[in-house]
Amino acid sequence: MKKRYLISPGPTPVPEDVLLEMARPVIHHRTPQFSEIFRECSEGLKRLFKTEQTVMTLASSGTGAMEASVTNLFSPGETVLVVNGGKFGERWGKIAEAYGLAVEWLNVEWGQAVTVERVAEALDKNSAISAVLTQGSETSTTVAHPIEAIAKLTKDTDRLLIVDGITCVGVVDTPMDEWGIDVLLTGSQKALMLPPGLAFIALSEKAWKKREISKLPRFYFDLKKEASNVVKDTSAYTPAASLISGFRKALEIMFDEGLDNVYQRHDTLARAVRAGCSSMGLKALAPDSPANSATGIFVPDGVDGGKLVKDLRDNYGVTFAGGQDHLKGKIIRIAHLGYFDSFDMIVAMSAIEMGLAKAGVADIAGKGVAAAEAILNERY
Amino acid sequence: MKKRYLISPGPTPVPEDVLLEMARPVIHHRTPQFSEIFRECSEGLKRLFKTEQTVMTLASSGTGAMEASVTNLFSPGETVLVVNGGKFGERWGKIAEAYGLAVEWLNVEWGQAVTVERVAEALDKNSAISAVLTQGSETSTTVAHPIEAIAKLTKDTDRLLIVDGITCVGVVDTPMDEWGIDVLLTGSQKALMLPPGLAFIALSEKAWKKREISKLPRFYFDLKKEASNVVKDTSAYTPAASLISGFRKALEIMFDEGLDNVYQRHDTLARAVRAGCSSMGLKALAPDSPANSATGIFVPDGVDGGKLVKDLRDNYGVTFAGGQDHLKGKIIRIAHLGYFDSFDMIVAMSAIEMGLAKAGVADIAGKGVAAAEAILNERY
Repeated sequence: MKKRYLISPGPTPVPEDVLLEMARPVIHHRTPQFSEIFRECSEGLKRLFKTEQTVMTLASSGTGAMEASVTNLFSPGETVLVVNGGKFGERWGKIAEAYGLAVEWLNVEWGQAVTVERVAEALDKNSAISAVLTQGSETSTTVAHPIEAIAKLTKDTDRLLIVDGITCVGVVDTPMDEWGIDVLLTGSQKALMLPPGLAFIALSEKAWKKREISKLPRFYFDLKKEASNVVKDTSAYTPAASLISGFRKALEIMFDEGLDNVYQRHDTLARAVRAGCSSMGLKALAPDSPANSATGIFVPDGVDGGKLVKDLRDNYGVTFAGGQDHLKGKIIRIAHLGYFDSFDMIVAMSAIEMGLAKAGVADIAGKGVAAAEAILNERY
Repeated sequence: MKKRYLISPGPTPVPEDVLLEMARPVIHHRTPQFSEIFRECSEGLKRLFKTEQTVMTLASSGTGAMEASVTNLFSPGETVLVVNGGKFGERWGKIAEAYGLAVEWLNVEWGQAVTVERVAEALDKNSAISAVLTQGSETSTTVAHPIEAIAKLTKDTDRLLIVDGITCVGVVDTPMDEWGIDVLLTGSQKALMLPPGLAFIALSEKAWKKREISKLPRFYFDLKKEASNVVKDTSAYTPAASLISGFRKALEIMFDEGLDNVYQRHDTLARAVRAGCSSMGLKALAPDSPANSATGIFVPDGVDGGKLVKDLRDNYGVTFAGGQDHLKGKIIRIAHLGYFDSFDMIVAMSAIEMGLAKAGVADIAGKGVAAAEAILNERY
């Protein structure tokens, strides 16, 4: 008998009430009944994105919405600045290149956030750059990029700021309109407490205008067509209906808690995990600009991180994420976004203590838990 | 947002697969389809009780099976010896008295197990005693009584040994036939990982013979009628059908794990909790004969145990049991029977550490968890 704990930065656990909602019979999507659900979700998305714009719901992973951002807004040969500080920054560049854009790579050391100064410098140096593509939180390195500050560089210019908010929207406050983000997108399986399968995206007025002159081909991800359906409380193509029913329930849960309380909870859990890891003597991957979505830590010297993650998953029943590319085997990523409460973080700390003790690390038992408890007790 | 953890000695958590099974449409109970489920449960019960006798399934709480033991086996005025070391021992006596039996009370200090010597002495002193009524594990005091040894006193005599095994069957090995237990009973909401609503009871040959001459009135709990239906794969009255469907799944889970592994798991979790509490400096209620079902601990001087249990339940989301009668406000009972895995015990230790820290107890953080981890790591 083994209970399973999912403490990875996506997929994240789904609340029981959402699972039950999705277990109900599928509603036909071309009915007033489904339109009502869809309408409530679209309205909830506006509250979540803090925007007056239409937020579209796509039956795709988050990458689909990233591709939609590129294909709807650019023309072949255009130049974009890509903040590349991890796997997902790299993905922006790959999508752009796949569609024939000229990518100006702004490479950032993994574990560091991009600085506003470097973005400003890159924009100053190349007037051809028509957009900045970045992550709000780079999930692969557990770094938070300074979106509000970057937005100040693009806000009153012709340039667009396109933000992958997959581990950012619903984790921390990301007011799209107020900050002047031109494209904000996210996915269902992170802070929104759903299984994978839905992506959400909104465009600013400036972005919608740019869409009119963009020439890249698109069909499934035609955002203009999608937006014209959303205002009629439906979608251009078959929506992932049961996920959307679940989403209505997930939004209800978030709004019942209150968005500010959700952000506060994520912040407290994140601080607890950081303190716990630090008390265990584990070095943080992103000490300077840690995201509230997940915390990456280096495993101690002499410990094989890949084996540790596998042992924790297969023997202890606790699924964390490991590292990617050159961080493979070197880090563990502990999630704290979405349907997580204090004791999930205690389980995370304890599992790491036990796994490391088993791997030969001495004098670690209880240390991570104790430090986390001190911070988590703020909640009670 | 608050996740809920149920760490009380009944009800205990129900596995997701059992919940899903019970969520299926109700099967009519007078059909071959239901009979097949019922038959599998009855066979599984024999494996669990380790008996060749028929094990009956009643739609009642465990107390119903306790009452059935009395009404099916005795006549008015008969004398029984009741081991009274807690709330449930007391209940045996109350049931017997309600039906006009003469109760010889063998009172045991709460937190202590009865000794075989005291049972032997009581039996020697009063030849009128026709049965010993006891608990296998006294849930209110988290004590294990020495059933195997007591059975040796009654086995080759006319006296019956009647064992309330509600927090004993499925927790620790309790081989009914081998030990010579005459009545063994349990309930669904403990080690059997189900919601409340079912009781299970089996009688030895000696008990069945005594039933023939017993004169107390009974109707719903007529075990002879029930047993004659069980052998036809049905029940005398309407069975709690969805609970029984869930029970088949729960038995499947237990047998897949292997009964010996189930007992071993309970033993490891119990030792971890005892070590954790001891490391926190908390005094055990039953230090000499602790049950593997639950661990009772005294709260530190100056801490109101009632308030602590309430705070942990209502604010932290972790439900423990408090104390009853003169132990009210003085103890916490931490469960480790049924659908519990290592990290449930970590959550239990951490919640108590946090609750006590909040209540002003110093230098406790991480101590219970660390000691528990060292023992739990035996499992990995």
